Amino acid sequence: MMEWDIFLAPYKQAVDELKVKLRGYRDLHEVSGKNSPIEFVTGRVKPVPSILDKAKRKAIPLDQLNTQMQDLAGIRVMCQFVDDIMKVVGLIRGRTDLTVVEERDYISEKKKSGYRSYHIVVQYPVQTVDGEKKILAEIQVRTLAMNFWATIEHSLNYKYKGNIPTDVKARLIRAAEAAFRLDEEMSQIREEIWVAQQRFLQKNADKD
Amino acid sequence: MMEWDIFLAPYKQAVDELKVKLRGYRDLHEVSGKNSPIEFVTGRVKPVPSILDKAKRKAIPLDQLNTQMQDLAGIRVMCQFVDDIMKVVGLIRGRTDLTVVEERDYISEKKKSGYRSYHIVVQYPVQTVDGEKKILAEIQVRTLAMNFWATIEHSLNYKYKGNIPTDVKARLIRAAEAAFRLDEEMSQIREEIWVAQQRFLQKNADKD
Amino acid sequence: MMEWDIFLAPYKQAVDELKVKLRGYRDLHEVSGKNSPIEFVTGRVKPVPSILDKAKRKAIPLDQLNTQMQDLAGIRVMCQFVDDIMKVVGLIRGRTDLTVVEERDYISEKKKSGYRSYHIVVQYPVQTVDGEKKILAEIQVRTLAMNFWATIEHSLNYKYKGNIPTDVKARLIRAAEAAFRLDEEMSQIREEIWVAQQRFLQKNADKD
Amino acid sequence: MMEWDIFLAPYKQAVDELKVKLRGYRDLHEVSGKNSPIEFVTGRVKPVPSILDKAKRKAIPLDQLNTQMQDLAGIRVMCQFVDDIMKVVGLIRGRTDLTVVEERDYISEKKKSGYRSYHIVVQYPVQTVDGEKKILAEIQVRTLAMNFWATIEHSLNYKYKGNIPTDVKARLIRAAEAAFRLDEEMSQIREEIWVAQQRFLQKNADKD
Repeated sequence: MMEWDIFLAPYKQAVDELKVKLRGYRDLHEVSGKNSPIEFVTGRVKPVPSILDKAKRKAIPLDQLNTQMQDLAGIRVMCQFVDDIMKVVGLIRGRTDLTVVEERDYISEKKKSGYRSYHIVVQYPVQTVDGEKKILAEIQVRTLAMNFWATIEHSLNYKYKGNIPTDVKARLIRAAEAAFRLDEEMSQIREEIWVAQQRFLQKNADKD
Repeated sequence: MMEWDIFLAPYKQAVDELKVKLRGYRDLHEVSGKNSPIEFVTGRVKPVPSILDKAKRKAIPLDQLNTQMQDLAGIRVMCQFVDDIMKVVGLIRGRTDLTVVEERDYISEKKKSGYRSYHIVVQYPVQTVDGEKKILAEIQVRTLAMNFWATIEHSLNYKYKGNIPTDVKARLIRAAEAAFRLDEEMSQIREEIWVAQQRFLQKNADKD
Repeated sequence: MMEWDIFLAPYKQAVDELKVKLRGYRDLHEVSGKNSPIEFVTGRVKPVPSILDKAKRKAIPLDQLNTQMQDLAGIRVMCQFVDDIMKVVGLIRGRTDLTVVEERDYISEKKKSGYRSYHIVVQYPVQTVDGEKKILAEIQVRTLAMNFWATIEHSLNYKYKGNIPTDVKARLIRAAEAAFRLDEEMSQIREEIWVAQQRFLQKNADKD
Repeated sequence: MMEWDIFLAPYKQAVDELKVKLRGYRDLHEVSGKNSPIEFVTGRVKPVPSILDKAKRKAIPLDQLNTQMQDLAGIRVMCQFVDDIMKVVGLIRGRTDLTVVEERDYISEKKKSGYRSYHIVVQYPVQTVDGEKKILAEIQVRTLAMNFWATIEHSLNYKYKGNIPTDVKARLIRAAEAAFRLDEEMSQIREEIWVAQQRFLQKNADKD
């Protein structure tokens, strides 16, 4: 039998540290008077039943979880605007306390289900009682609307055990489109603000 | 000069207590195997500059803030689905540790700006160092999409000092419509699930 | 079989609320420029194995836990000085959101083991999904030194399953005496400060 | 004028990260069934008035704070037993995410005032919005009794502005001795437990 608590302890520690680190960006932006691209951050260690399910589904031997299952430690970063996503990705790429291992862009190319998000897999060093241990963690970056939709899809998948009926699936795609349009409208308001501010700065500059 | 820290301390305490109390519903639902109508809860004491602004705008004398300004202590309850809002309102009305003083329904009748939310003003007793003190607090109940939109509108109002240009206002209303459509789509998925589950239960009952 | 999660949920909620409420006193004191008699507050729901142990030891039927076991919800309030303990007790007695059911004073009369603390059992109303539910909670008030000692005694009792060897017990009593002397020395420093401050105020008053 | 918020933001971030990292040791010990040498961890950024006071007292130019004032970011690690202190020091020395810059041992050689603690100054890399920034942080490791005493001494120093009257100073030293004796008694109980456990293991081994 595998001792899950011992195996997962460094993953839990990594989640706690990455949450504090990524949440820190908000304050660091605010004191410099910049808008933070990060709205909020959540994190979790994958529950054991979900680990067993996924291991079975993807035929991952339990003694290779640490290299084959990349989302045992999972972090979610929520942004207000679509444009913020790549800024967050840039911040993560620039950190010296982790190594980016893989990136998956489901924003430019959304999944068939309607799922949109930017995934980054990182290697992160945790200091355990027996010294440093490098583990994998997955960071998902998405807008609030993408996150809202993804939460619903996840609970439907869970209820229907992966076999969502065709009519519900169709509705889910329509909801994904509504979420997408909301993001679009919001983006345009943001650009509107920028343009308005630049025009304002322009006018003031003209006066000099 | 007014000593804001002393004046606002019971409001801060009320916010802390109400957050713990309303967040508690999630766990209380989960252990009974019911879906929680509450997704998450935030709270804040109104910042002093905003208090002064509003007092000036609404001509409230500073020594009548405790009775005339109802949102010094503010709580926000976010729901996944529109239908959850009235369930949360029902839970709040049923509590014996506070008294509902006023309700404002901007769901059935949204504001011209596009704003939707259900507001409840409550009288809440705080135990201070000098005994019980009853204060007013405002609880806003809304969906995630309503909240998302309201956050943007708030920051635009702040940037434009209440005078949002007509073209930005038009875009904001379109964004509110997109948020509304997202809520509609999500509601239909939820009903879809319910109908599916009832059909399933029906079938099983037929077998007996 | 008893469903512990459901049974204990209101106790967990009570612990969360009482922690926020009692911690609030610190801030409420600080803004008024008074020293807080409360240093810090912890809380826990009794773990199920400990509940079963105690029920067996005290012959409490499991269906009478809610009335017969008073410390299912447990709160600890730590004070810097012995004199602060009765101030905290006074604050708790004065609250209108709970009812004091019983008090046990192990400060004036310490237990044979050397244990010192002031225990207050309160009846506290929790708002559940099905309305108000009154539950019992035990609040222990003690100095940091008393708490330090009690923590060690607890872990020794646990290790020796209640049968601490005579020589360890003797040492434990000596440690309790050392903790008591530390409290005494600290109390005298506090009085020293008070006397010094009064002498200072006296001198300044003489000048007028 | 110096912009304190901007200057101190990375220190605040370092404090938040180090708290999560050092608190993590507790869980990492617990899941391996080992006693944690760490009881609890606190942290704070030095308040601006204290920074100005200390800069004046030690003649540190304000533009050299980052190199000359080592405790702008301060962490405190509290242990139950004196023997735990060097275990914690060992854990900190072994970390690969920080560099130990200096150590000051006030346990072997306590200060004249009675102060005991182990101080470690570390260089810690924070990821700011503009990339990595190495800052200094001071970690103080002490027992609960040492901490208790130090808290009182600190508040007396504050009240008397560094000039504690001779009679209060004498009492403070007596309190320090009481704290020391408490630590001694506690240490012996701990050794007692170890000896008892070894004797027990010995007996069981003899049976084989």
